[in-house]
Amino acid sequence: MDSESFRLDGYRLIDWIAEYLEHPERYPVLAQVEPGQVERALPKEPPEEPEPLEAILQDVEKIIAPGLTHWNHPGFFAYFAITGSGPGILGELLSAAFNVNAMLWRTAPAATELEELVLGWLRQLLGLPPEFMGLINDTASVSSLCAIAAAREALGLRIREEGLAGRADLPRLRLYTSEQAHSSIEKAAIVLGLGQAGVKKIAVDEEFRLRSRDLEAAIKKDLKAGCKPFCVVATVGTTSTTSVDPVPEIADICRRYNLWLHVDAAYAGAAAILPEKRWALAGCKRADSIVVNPHKWLFVPIDCSAFYCRHPSILRQAFSLVPEYLRTSEEDRVRNFMDYGIQLGRRFRALKLWMVLRAFGAEGLRQRLRDHVALAERFQGWIEASPDFEPLAPVPFSVVCFRSRPQDLSACPETEAYLNLLNERMLEAVNGTGDVFLSHTKINEKFALRLAIGNLGTTEAHVRRAWELLQEHAMRLDAELRPATLKD
Amino acid sequence: MDSESFRLDGYRLIDWIAEYLEHPERYPVLAQVEPGQVERALPKEPPEEPEPLEAILQDVEKIIAPGLTHWNHPGFFAYFAITGSGPGILGELLSAAFNVNAMLWRTAPAATELEELVLGWLRQLLGLPPEFMGLINDTASVSSLCAIAAAREALGLRIREEGLAGRADLPRLRLYTSEQAHSSIEKAAIVLGLGQAGVKKIAVDEEFRLRSRDLEAAIKKDLKAGCKPFCVVATVGTTSTTSVDPVPEIADICRRYNLWLHVDAAYAGAAAILPEKRWALAGCKRADSIVVNPHKWLFVPIDCSAFYCRHPSILRQAFSLVPEYLRTSEEDRVRNFMDYGIQLGRRFRALKLWMVLRAFGAEGLRQRLRDHVALAERFQGWIEASPDFEPLAPVPFSVVCFRSRPQDLSACPETEAYLNLLNERMLEAVNGTGDVFLSHTKINEKFALRLAIGNLGTTEAHVRRAWELLQEHAMRLDAELRPATLKD
Repeated sequence: MDSESFRLDGYRLIDWIAEYLEHPERYPVLAQVEPGQVERALPKEPPEEPEPLEAILQDVEKIIAPGLTHWNHPGFFAYFAITGSGPGILGELLSAAFNVNAMLWRTAPAATELEELVLGWLRQLLGLPPEFMGLINDTASVSSLCAIAAAREALGLRIREEGLAGRADLPRLRLYTSEQAHSSIEKAAIVLGLGQAGVKKIAVDEEFRLRSRDLEAAIKKDLKAGCKPFCVVATVGTTSTTSVDPVPEIADICRRYNLWLHVDAAYAGAAAILPEKRWALAGCKRADSIVVNPHKWLFVPIDCSAFYCRHPSILRQAFSLVPEYLRTSEEDRVRNFMDYGIQLGRRFRALKLWMVLRAFGAEGLRQRLRDHVALAERFQGWIEASPDFEPLAPVPFSVVCFRSRPQDLSACPETEAYLNLLNERMLEAVNGTGDVFLSHTKINEKFALRLAIGNLGTTEAHVRRAWELLQEHAMRLDAELRPATLKD
Repeated sequence: MDSESFRLDGYRLIDWIAEYLEHPERYPVLAQVEPGQVERALPKEPPEEPEPLEAILQDVEKIIAPGLTHWNHPGFFAYFAITGSGPGILGELLSAAFNVNAMLWRTAPAATELEELVLGWLRQLLGLPPEFMGLINDTASVSSLCAIAAAREALGLRIREEGLAGRADLPRLRLYTSEQAHSSIEKAAIVLGLGQAGVKKIAVDEEFRLRSRDLEAAIKKDLKAGCKPFCVVATVGTTSTTSVDPVPEIADICRRYNLWLHVDAAYAGAAAILPEKRWALAGCKRADSIVVNPHKWLFVPIDCSAFYCRHPSILRQAFSLVPEYLRTSEEDRVRNFMDYGIQLGRRFRALKLWMVLRAFGAEGLRQRLRDHVALAERFQGWIEASPDFEPLAPVPFSVVCFRSRPQDLSACPETEAYLNLLNERMLEAVNGTGDVFLSHTKINEKFALRLAIGNLGTTEAHVRRAWELLQEHAMRLDAELRPATLKD
């Protein structure tokens, strides 16, 4: 591709994207395709001859874009809603153009140093102390896995050298986290050879926060049984309800029993850039490691997971392996990020984070987060004011959990089962409109709808549209589905 | 960022990149900055107020670009030289704009199905059978880790459930690979709790290929000692010398002892798109899993690692965890890629691979690979013809290992130490010119220079320039450094 073609094709693509980002609503937010439909529309065999970008873009327009769920749509309220902002998209473009592998300082000094610098910026914005070394991983799944691997290494049991299997000298290892923790914690435990049985899931209180008394009791019980507790993962902003574990109390327990404290603040950590939400990271200064994902609520395109660790030397000990072909003369004077994680190959992700932080400015980011919190609170207000809906969890950030519960519903043994059916069908119905996309969770066995605000295009009108659709479909479906036994 | 600003800033950035890619030689290929220089040139604190993209691009121009090692420079001959081609860069741009998380089919149907489709295309180009399910990971480090995790799960020892530690019923587990295997294999073993001791490094023959007789002997010995062999990792294109392990023989052994065979073909697998290099993947049809990185030698920007596995259900069993908030009604009818690996978050990487395969066409890719192989062979020819240089390994693909060995050098006990010093200093000197960047390895204790061809801009003139610099600096340094005892 010569320079002139790159320029022309680049302009064409920028135009297409500008148009797409201006009108994401021309597509249904949740894709309305059948399984296999996209695949069937494309040739099964690779082309022998080159094709012009124009032909490819036509397929993007005709087949790919209509086959996607549009995370850019302002009616995207599912999971954690996100935004890959303009500066972030351009940052990703520039990073693809540089195409450096920042495995060693030498292979991309500016990428390594910008990563150190910009993670310092983010650390300051979050109010974390300078003892934390920061680096960027792809996902929180990987950041948390690295944290737990470091915790395992910190045991000093020669696990790096000797492994875990077939060792009569090793006790069972125990990791603690709440029953509301993200699935990636349990997955990390599986990968690391701790097994699902190595994860003790601690019960939560009525606001879905880990019960620290239960945590301590579980540790004591395990110690008595000859197991070796080594790590606690606390969550700031659980995926179901965005609850915040009592990190200060957990940190006390970790200190008492000499356990590694990792904090999964992948979503809600970002809120700490707001003075009024700084409480969310209370106690996190005392954590051993913490993860906050700028690709979640700081407008950076995925992937970008900021991982902070207070013990870089332990992390290094857990992961560093330097074969001859990766030795460099400066290795004692620089940070070679390959030494601190699983992947040797490392993209230049700091660029997009840097560009987003500069293009928005700290105050610009704060304003957007405040807007999102305000929209979520407004929606929660409507839920609370409605006689036919009920909130199912507090709203500390920008996610609302709720359900429909028609006011004239009788209370009897079948009520809960009916409500689960009604809400599940309601979710399908509103998502089927193409105007909004919400996801769900289960809260105390109740099927709960989740409305997550995180898209920069979302305005009150979009949230109101969701509210109208929910009310409309709740009423319609309740009329259709309610069994006679539940009628007054 | 409104649509008009995005367009204008986008054009500006496309222009900058077009200019950059047209003249990567305006920068030294290996960055000529001191540790800390980039970081010191930038503010330590994040900006409060927004800054225009223009200001950011000025810093890119003044601070970032000069602080990078330029993997786009046609004189980049280090590690594995790569190219993020124009169509690949634009693919990355589009994928950042869509900003989908392809964790579930539902969250990005076209991303999931394009990933299936395009991995099918690549599989056909490589001559692998349709039984292999393909998916894209970020790096070969992760692909190989997933393969070994699946192999561990295939043991049926309830490792997912119970873990490895503190179990009297588990023997030590053993993984086999050659002493020339990539460091990521050992790192995966550490992460997975096998430990470094769980990796048996098998000796290689005179062409750096795993000795299958030694492999079988090691397995027998471990079995006798009560260990449990479970996996062999063969390499097609080792990092040091690009040697190819005898996969057909290894596959026989794996069948005999019921071991999982994973093939790390991250770099050289791509060569199999050439009929004349198809031999490189001989026997790989019988592997249980294989990794080939299109970001290495198929002109896709990093990251893009194609992972093929013959047992998707085992992979799924090793990794799948579906919390309520990720359940979907269609989950039995579709592929949810989050079930097959570590990371929940998944970028839309298939797009750039699809765009590259279409923009080049299969024949276009083959031609470029042939050019690279031809350039490497030409360089190897010069080395062989020179009385002052010697080849240190065969050249099956596009990487040449060699060293300077002045013809009038006496042979005595100090010769090898002197040659190591001479070649190390020579490497520093040629890399210091800014015209070329080579890396090194050690081969039988000899300090070896590696010249890797993989950049689309590299022509014979660039390779010739490297050759001239090497000869010039070898002569100069030999005159400077040679001790009297080694003079004739």
